[in-house]
Amino acid sequence: MYRIDCLQFANWSESIFSEMRAGQVDAVHVTIAYHESFRETVDQITAWNQLFERHSDLIMHGTTAADIDVARETNRTAIFFGFQNPSPIEADIHLVQILHTLGARFMQLSYNNQSLLATGCYEAEDPGITRMGKEVIREMNRVGMVIDMSHSADRSTIEAADLSERPIAITHANPHAWHPALRNKRHEVIQAVTSRGGMMGFSLYPHHLRDKSECTVESFCQMVADAAATYGAEHFGIGSDLCQDQPDSIVEWMRVGRWTKTVDFGEGSASAPGFPAQPDWFASNLDFGNIEQGLHDIGFDDHEVAGLMGDNWYRFFADSFGPIA
Amino acid sequence: MYRIDCLQFANWSESIFSEMRAGQVDAVHVTIAYHESFRETVDQITAWNQLFERHSDLIMHGTTAADIDVARETNRTAIFFGFQNPSPIEADIHLVQILHTLGARFMQLSYNNQSLLATGCYEAEDPGITRMGKEVIREMNRVGMVIDMSHSADRSTIEAADLSERPIAITHANPHAWHPALRNKRHEVIQAVTSRGGMMGFSLYPHHLRDKSECTVESFCQMVADAAATYGAEHFGIGSDLCQDQPDSIVEWMRVGRWTKTVDFGEGSASAPGFPAQPDWFASNLDFGNIEQGLHDIGFDDHEVAGLMGDNWYRFFADSFGPIA
Repeated sequence: MYRIDCLQFANWSESIFSEMRAGQVDAVHVTIAYHESFRETVDQITAWNQLFERHSDLIMHGTTAADIDVARETNRTAIFFGFQNPSPIEADIHLVQILHTLGARFMQLSYNNQSLLATGCYEAEDPGITRMGKEVIREMNRVGMVIDMSHSADRSTIEAADLSERPIAITHANPHAWHPALRNKRHEVIQAVTSRGGMMGFSLYPHHLRDKSECTVESFCQMVADAAATYGAEHFGIGSDLCQDQPDSIVEWMRVGRWTKTVDFGEGSASAPGFPAQPDWFASNLDFGNIEQGLHDIGFDDHEVAGLMGDNWYRFFADSFGPIA
Repeated sequence: MYRIDCLQFANWSESIFSEMRAGQVDAVHVTIAYHESFRETVDQITAWNQLFERHSDLIMHGTTAADIDVARETNRTAIFFGFQNPSPIEADIHLVQILHTLGARFMQLSYNNQSLLATGCYEAEDPGITRMGKEVIREMNRVGMVIDMSHSADRSTIEAADLSERPIAITHANPHAWHPALRNKRHEVIQAVTSRGGMMGFSLYPHHLRDKSECTVESFCQMVADAAATYGAEHFGIGSDLCQDQPDSIVEWMRVGRWTKTVDFGEGSASAPGFPAQPDWFASNLDFGNIEQGLHDIGFDDHEVAGLMGDNWYRFFADSFGPIA
């Protein structure tokens, strides 16, 4: 059984990498760009290269599913790169291949706002995938970079699932029916993604949870059980959205980037602008066991639990990260 | 009477600058970016700075309407910078002020495709101005950079005219009713721009002309007369879209940029992918007199002709290129 988290954006440190090992986390998809340009994204990659060198006993760069096995055999966690916005390719489709070569394996087509490719979930209207978006989907399909629609609007997500020749992902979100946050996904969206072989990672970010920081592990696991019953357990995993040890200035960067001169509070508010507190049963990489136990308790069998905790993401990684065989 | 052309993109040379002088052209708005990044746009500006230095007897950099008078007094043509796409600001609203300081006076919110700010006229649907677009319009209003919607879609253009606190422009296009090209503007669009004090420049680019390269000066001037009768002559000028001495590779760059790996022929076609031939009465900066004569012949009075040939743009430049007084 693999243990894979398909979204984290921590203030990376030896302490967190040690927790990944203690928590037996085999692989993590980490965000390396929110609003960064190509050049700034390369800086993020060089920063990661230094972390890989400095902490070579704890982590390694993952680019294929097989790297997860290498990581396990050497008691390390494989780190996979992804972007929450297509800003790293700027206006240049040819940068998709360049960034794939540098290790990028996930790219969101939009982050809250309209992008050159697709609409974000905070825009008033969603006209679907743009002309350039259709071209970039084809190119991402070709090289093996996963289309991630976590922060995209509904129509754009459904069109991306239709247009993509390969299954796509929502790496971190929950069903809107369970908790009607703007970022959570409506039935038609989850249906479009999973019915075409795609994956969705359940988020542990409090704004995506019923009762937010007070959400119980039982409520979370019941949501998983309901989603599995509707769409099939094999289409789900964890995408915790864990933002450990980050200062509140980071959530402001995520929300505001450089697109406005005013403040946008996103899922927060003027009275609570910062990161919300994690539920006590999921505060760090040490806590995946609580979810695993909760999934058993809610009635999943061993095979399903293994799928949800990582095997489903492993299979998806294996199918997605290179040219079509 | 001023003679001002509010859009050219030539393969700049001493020969063309000499024609500007021989043709008594006081000012030209030149395109310095189609798909260029911020850094690439700075390269375009440094290239222009070298031209200003080398040809200081023929041209000068214009940043205010008063510079046009300086140019006239010194027998030169004032060159104003503009972008056909917001690519120079990348995803950073703060670059609006930086680029204004460097001389940019016009920026199109989109060029054919969806941008971060607005929709282009080749997209299937147009949801209007984006969240970032609203912020950037406010910032352009603040510093005095003109919102140009020449290549934008209808709804985005109408919304931009509404949202902008200052009059906006369509620097180069013709009425769709006269020649139903995708790039020409429908009644509601021209109405929205001109009724709020905005300007439109008539294009001499053959794809925008009835009968294309065979268009007669009489037909062109009748179109001007009809537009003047409907919207008021004071809202119009010339934006010739003259692309003199350019190789066909340039029109491919305009159309394709870096957004697709295939070829998009835009207003051309696979059988005619290059620049179309100009009408024989408007082939260069020497030919503005033919339009001026045609406007007289169609019945405009001297004051109206002066407005159409440049005085209207002069007034608009004077009102638009700095902070609101």
